[in-house]
Amino acid sequence: MSNSPVTLLGLGAMGKALATAFLTGGHPTTVWNRTPGKAEPLVALGATDAAGAAEAVAANELVVVCLLDYASVRDVLGPVAGALRGRTLVNLTNGTPAQAREMAEWVAAQGAAYLDGGIMAIPPGIGTEHAFLLYSGDQGAFDTHRPVLERLGRAHFLGRDAGLAPLFDIALLSGMSGMIAGALHALALVGTENVAATEFAPMLQGWITAMTIGIPLYAEQIDSGDYAHGVVSNVGMQAAAYVNLIRAAEDQGISPELIAPLKPLMDRRVAAGHAHEDLSGLVELLRK
Amino acid sequence: MSNSPVTLLGLGAMGKALATAFLTGGHPTTVWNRTPGKAEPLVALGATDAAGAAEAVAANELVVVCLLDYASVRDVLGPVAGALRGRTLVNLTNGTPAQAREMAEWVAAQGAAYLDGGIMAIPPGIGTEHAFLLYSGDQGAFDTHRPVLERLGRAHFLGRDAGLAPLFDIALLSGMSGMIAGALHALALVGTENVAATEFAPMLQGWITAMTIGIPLYAEQIDSGDYAHGVVSNVGMQAAAYVNLIRAAEDQGISPELIAPLKPLMDRRVAAGHAHEDLSGLVELLRK
Ligand SMILES: NC(=O)c1ccc[n+]([C@@H]2O[C@H](COP(=O)([O-])OP(=O)(O)OC[C@H]3O[C@@H](n4cnc5c(N)ncnc54)[C@H](OP(=O)(O)O)[C@@H]3O)[C@@H](O)[C@H]2O)c1
Ligand SMILES: NC(=O)c1ccc[n+]([C@@H]2O[C@H](COP(=O)([O-])OP(=O)(O)OC[C@H]3O[C@@H](n4cnc5c(N)ncnc54)[C@H](OP(=O)(O)O)[C@@H]3O)[C@@H](O)[C@H]2O)c1
Repeated sequence: MSNSPVTLLGLGAMGKALATAFLTGGHPTTVWNRTPGKAEPLVALGATDAAGAAEAVAANELVVVCLLDYASVRDVLGPVAGALRGRTLVNLTNGTPAQAREMAEWVAAQGAAYLDGGIMAIPPGIGTEHAFLLYSGDQGAFDTHRPVLERLGRAHFLGRDAGLAPLFDIALLSGMSGMIAGALHALALVGTENVAATEFAPMLQGWITAMTIGIPLYAEQIDSGDYAHGVVSNVGMQAAAYVNLIRAAEDQGISPELIAPLKPLMDRRVAAGHAHEDLSGLVELLRK
Repeated sequence: MSNSPVTLLGLGAMGKALATAFLTGGHPTTVWNRTPGKAEPLVALGATDAAGAAEAVAANELVVVCLLDYASVRDVLGPVAGALRGRTLVNLTNGTPAQAREMAEWVAAQGAAYLDGGIMAIPPGIGTEHAFLLYSGDQGAFDTHRPVLERLGRAHFLGRDAGLAPLFDIALLSGMSGMIAGALHALALVGTENVAATEFAPMLQGWITAMTIGIPLYAEQIDSGDYAHGVVSNVGMQAAAYVNLIRAAEDQGISPELIAPLKPLMDRRVAAGHAHEDLSGLVELLRK
């Protein structure tokens, strides 16, 4: 199994990293990309450059696809649906749980096994201990192909519902996006007083990392619904400080738009009598 | 110096932690709080409970204040301004750079030395290796009182401009707030599929922590203005994935308001021809 062959559709930044990990792991790898020419460095590593998507799909039982979005997956696989019968499709393209469940049905209708996946890494992390990938869908297919998939990074199987991997993937990306939004705002803010971003960045990285310690506490409060248990930074105090966060941005000529949305949610919690509780209670306002 | 006395005004969650650190460090500590009764556990540790703010300020040369906001600081210090002459006021209340500069002028006019400070810790972290505090303003006062201030956590002096500590403080809190907003959204999202927040939290914390590695890279790009240098996750790809983040939230019945503001900024960067660049270029859109 360790040298089982694999087909990869899509040679963007991520696809190239995936192909490289398969090849350096010793797996005969057939690749294809819509725009020609992208396979060249991979061919130098031993990859086979397929003339078309149909040929690439036909080449191996295991077909991995990593394209921009589900619309591109449909563009590529729609015309070659007949070639999927009897194969395993592992879709590492970012999408929603609903898109993954729809794709799982469509792939099953073509007589193929389906795994949806979420890549929790940036391209340089692929194939290193820093990468992990989330999978859900056909458990037999996961067990069979796990050794190949482990070439890309640690493989976590979340369950038979194809929507689970994208649910976790998107939740993690959402958490990361909030962190990035906050960090970009912070870097812009110190820049207004001629503080170099590179000078401030280590302090910012250390601080955000340290403050992630609140996440397990928030999680306990959310599971129990008791947002006052173990509170250290009450919403009332935080709402007062948040006025300063917004005002400081405006004073310094930085748009507060990236950090603004917490404010009305805090104010609503305070107005509803939850000033003494933790921020975790805000999740109640997010649920529709 | 190591046993020099100190006065502390404000015994909220943070003030109590500060007083405890002074007392366990062996500093004679005089405390005062607007609402009476909060000093009791501190008196048990050896604190002197002052009858009023004027008496508390008069008791020691070093006066530390930690109240809800600058309005409360004005409420408390305004009536006792005359008692400040010849003293050092260290204001650890959260505020904006502009508020700190104004307060520095007012305190100077009373004939006192002024240090503004930002507390980078939650109350249980005070007095431990996890806490650090940012100071700016009167450098002589900082040097003199550094040993007492170090009882609270590592002390960083940022410069003579009193606005610097709040600038850094607010930038760090803004970065943290983005991270918390993202984390709360993520916890709410997985909850829609009956995934316990506590089950998901360790993965979320690990992922956000790992992804802070992008902050120094963004900082380099921001300082150089070259947002394409070393790019691994281009804005075009991220904008496509972001559609899924918003849609998944909506599909699952979670308001996307906490993560929404990145989207229009990404779209504007893509529309302006920066799809191949990194997210760091968004700071250009934040500057007014
Ligand atoms: N880069 C990351 O940091 C990262 C991390 C985790 C997950 N991901 C996910 O991995 C996937 C790929 O990302 P990437 O970084 O490789 O993006 P990318 O560098 O922008 O590459 C996009 C790929 O999609 C192809 N494509 C787009 N539209 C197509 C269409 N209509 N038909 C056929 N092919 C189409 C492109 O082909 P052409 O060359 O012909 O344009 C290219 O191969 C995305 O879903 C992304 O969310 C990326
Ligand atoms: N807790 C944290 O995690 C944390 C972390 C870093 C920085 N800080 C900062 O530390 C400061 C205090 O926070 P905290 O957590 O101690 O808040 P808190 O528990 O809500 O306590 C607020 C304090 O301010 C006093 N106060 C409010 N309005 C007043 C007024 N008009 N006149 C006189 N006193 C007034 C309160 O007195 P009463 O008892 O009479 O109401 C109380 O002592 C804030 O600026 C906060 O941003 C807090």
